[in-house]
Amino acid sequence: MNNQKEKSQKKNSILVDGVILNGPVADSKSGEKFVEEVSKMIMEEVIKKASDATEKVCEWQSPEKLRTLLDLELKDTGENHPKLLQLCQDVIQFSVKTYHPRFFNQLYAGIDYYSLAARFIMEALNPSVYTYEISPVFLLVEEAVLKKMIEYIGWEGGDGIFNPGGSVSNMYAMNLARYKYFPDIKEKGLSGIPQLVLFTSEECHYSVKKAASFLGIGTQNVYFVKSDDRGKMIPEELEKQVQQARNEGSTPFFVSATAGTTVLGAFDPLNDIADICEKHNLWLSTSVAWNPHKMLMAGIQCCALLVKDSSDLLKRCYSANASYLFQQDKFYDISYDTGDKSIQCSRRADAFKFWMTWKALGTTGLEERVNRALALVRYLVDEIKKREGFQLLLEPEYANICFWYIPPSLRKMEKGHEFWEKLSCVAPIIKERMMKKGSMMLGYQPHRGKVNFFRQVIISPQVIHEDMDFLLDEIDSLGKDL
Amino acid sequence: MNNQKEKSQKKNSILVDGVILNGPVADSKSGEKFVEEVSKMIMEEVIKKASDATEKVCEWQSPEKLRTLLDLELKDTGENHPKLLQLCQDVIQFSVKTYHPRFFNQLYAGIDYYSLAARFIMEALNPSVYTYEISPVFLLVEEAVLKKMIEYIGWEGGDGIFNPGGSVSNMYAMNLARYKYFPDIKEKGLSGIPQLVLFTSEECHYSVKKAASFLGIGTQNVYFVKSDDRGKMIPEELEKQVQQARNEGSTPFFVSATAGTTVLGAFDPLNDIADICEKHNLWLSTSVAWNPHKMLMAGIQCCALLVKDSSDLLKRCYSANASYLFQQDKFYDISYDTGDKSIQCSRRADAFKFWMTWKALGTTGLEERVNRALALVRYLVDEIKKREGFQLLLEPEYANICFWYIPPSLRKMEKGHEFWEKLSCVAPIIKERMMKKGSMMLGYQPHRGKVNFFRQVIISPQVIHEDMDFLLDEIDSLGKDL
Repeated sequence: MNNQKEKSQKKNSILVDGVILNGPVADSKSGEKFVEEVSKMIMEEVIKKASDATEKVCEWQSPEKLRTLLDLELKDTGENHPKLLQLCQDVIQFSVKTYHPRFFNQLYAGIDYYSLAARFIMEALNPSVYTYEISPVFLLVEEAVLKKMIEYIGWEGGDGIFNPGGSVSNMYAMNLARYKYFPDIKEKGLSGIPQLVLFTSEECHYSVKKAASFLGIGTQNVYFVKSDDRGKMIPEELEKQVQQARNEGSTPFFVSATAGTTVLGAFDPLNDIADICEKHNLWLSTSVAWNPHKMLMAGIQCCALLVKDSSDLLKRCYSANASYLFQQDKFYDISYDTGDKSIQCSRRADAFKFWMTWKALGTTGLEERVNRALALVRYLVDEIKKREGFQLLLEPEYANICFWYIPPSLRKMEKGHEFWEKLSCVAPIIKERMMKKGSMMLGYQPHRGKVNFFRQVIISPQVIHEDMDFLLDEIDSLGKDL
Repeated sequence: MNNQKEKSQKKNSILVDGVILNGPVADSKSGEKFVEEVSKMIMEEVIKKASDATEKVCEWQSPEKLRTLLDLELKDTGENHPKLLQLCQDVIQFSVKTYHPRFFNQLYAGIDYYSLAARFIMEALNPSVYTYEISPVFLLVEEAVLKKMIEYIGWEGGDGIFNPGGSVSNMYAMNLARYKYFPDIKEKGLSGIPQLVLFTSEECHYSVKKAASFLGIGTQNVYFVKSDDRGKMIPEELEKQVQQARNEGSTPFFVSATAGTTVLGAFDPLNDIADICEKHNLWLSTSVAWNPHKMLMAGIQCCALLVKDSSDLLKRCYSANASYLFQQDKFYDISYDTGDKSIQCSRRADAFKFWMTWKALGTTGLEERVNRALALVRYLVDEIKKREGFQLLLEPEYANICFWYIPPSLRKMEKGHEFWEKLSCVAPIIKERMMKKGSMMLGYQPHRGKVNFFRQVIISPQVIHEDMDFLLDEIDSLGKDL
């Protein structure tokens, strides 16, 4: 068909404004071949190596060196296919293998084959989920996933939207809360509104501060509530601070609690906090930001904001009713055109990849993955306790295991200033060595007066308990001379 | 290697917390096979059909019907591969083919093989561009693309960031502007700040209003400046309104001008507006929101905000310095850890796909595509003028062609109230018919007192002038009985 089309145009070549119009300017056969070759490369170099722990996690190059290794510059003329394929090869080679069984560096890791297949479909179809007209399938899929997530949370009903990241979800929630209490804000803005203040724990994600700044509330008006030794918000402290803010003439409106903090993996006591919120009429249990791109492995980005409200709060808060997109005289039920609930116009169909994994594994299969990760946590914790030179910061509550490695030279030292100062340099050096070797990747950070420690996060179902043994052996081997 | 690994674990099976740990829970061989089969399906059902105009653009089903055709529900147990492959097939079948040569419905369309290949790579590698440690290649690629875009705009230097959508870019710009004039806002919020007001044309994108609401400025404080018959902002009106706002005690700080409005494709007179902004110290030529996912076909989402400022304004405005991500004692130059310039934490490597297309085509190739699209616009406009029953709203300035189709029954009618009322029903009916037939997709809308008209947008290099002929023939054939 394509060939017939191409032939017929050659005959009909015409000149308009100095441009010859004689068929598609893109050579589809050659383009298809390129995509085919890159797909093969992805299968061989990425997907088939994803489960192989003997591959390198990363091939470290300094920014200065990598810049010379890659041909980054964009030029006037294009490159041919062999050159482009070489570039693809280079990109894969020098990228960090986040899907590697020994990549433990972030709160996401591993490969989920179902999600990945769905992601390929989505990229090929290139949908934008604003109207049913353009995204019939993906809007229904989003609806089905949101419904199931809401059911899983335990609400009787609700609403939700997928959006680009947990940080943005937090913004949505904060903005919804202030809109609910002061609906005039949408039109009039914050002027004339009493000084809004919000609460989160010291251990909160940094996006809460970013959100307060972006929404015009200001980072000063984020009150950080003390948390206990395990990193959990102390409800009594919350109540005290709410009362204090009221006494100072501010208007508390929002509490952001965390289920799985970034560093320690702590869960704030949600029920106690919810009671305080109810008592003081603050927004909390009314929305949940949930990122399936983390432990549920949907791939970046996949984030939902779910709201308990069923009175179209999202739509009332966000809609702008653009007449060129959300026409009112369409021939189908326009309640399916959900795009106006979003702060975005074009919006990715991120729900789809999570839907595919959920379809493939079922709720049971997803639960099994989480339980397995937590069993591996338990295994690693036991190993850490057995081994000389390793010290847990605290018993983990979730998938984050925080620990120090104490090299032999420090093991007999008194735990005074010098000890901690020396220990603080250990993790960064081991991190440098592991990255240069490419054997694994693991995060470290200082945290609330504690010097640099490792944070191990177990997510991927490709991880086995032998990888836990390897992790400890490798840290010891990389750091025992320090 | 993988097999060896699998064998070795079977021997080492252990029980922890009731979970048997004996190797990866995911079956990688079967997962790889699934991805391979879906990839084949994508190649056959999507990519190879993308250039074939005889395929259907969409296979219309009502939401109610489609829900019964698709098995959407998420269950406790997972599905087997044949069932999952059938679901993938269904998703493709019932999705709108936005890559089809006769999809003219949105401001994006078509398929770019290079961008698509890059998107597949990106999904497989699953990077998040916050730190060089995790995304060495993609951070350097983003830097290279931003540098070239800035150069293309004509600035001597600058900064920028890729973010999820043009709407979000507009928010970034608005927030940067108010931060520049009132840096205290980041910490203190809007309270105590004079009433900020901003300006845009009547023809602006609806995201400007959404941004004002989200940032706490309020939609009432968006002043819509009159535009001329061609849809361009009238600079004298802007100046008048700025003056008036000042007189009323408000504080103008920001003008959002549009280069290619959504409906008419109008370009605001940037130079004149910039002069007014300079005179009144307002933010305008200081940032550009540019979406390569539209005419440059990078695929949704690919959007950059570029700023002229070289004094780290983005970083100062947005940074939160999370110590668990942006550690200060890393072993490489941490100025490459650019993630803190963003409102997001996890962030997609959207620059990469645009980089790949630019590499493949060169600047010349990209320019050629745009010129070709504009020549096709010229061709279509000439055809519309020649044909009875078609009427242009105005001479297009860009890739949007706005026109009415007047069916034979209305052609002799006086252009009074009845005529316009009847005409307003024509486009929606033709739209319904074309979607049910699946022959093409084209948008319509009412606009500033003009009843429903078609808006044709030419983007894809797969489009040929015969498709323009087809478009007019098809509209006539679908609507001549009306």
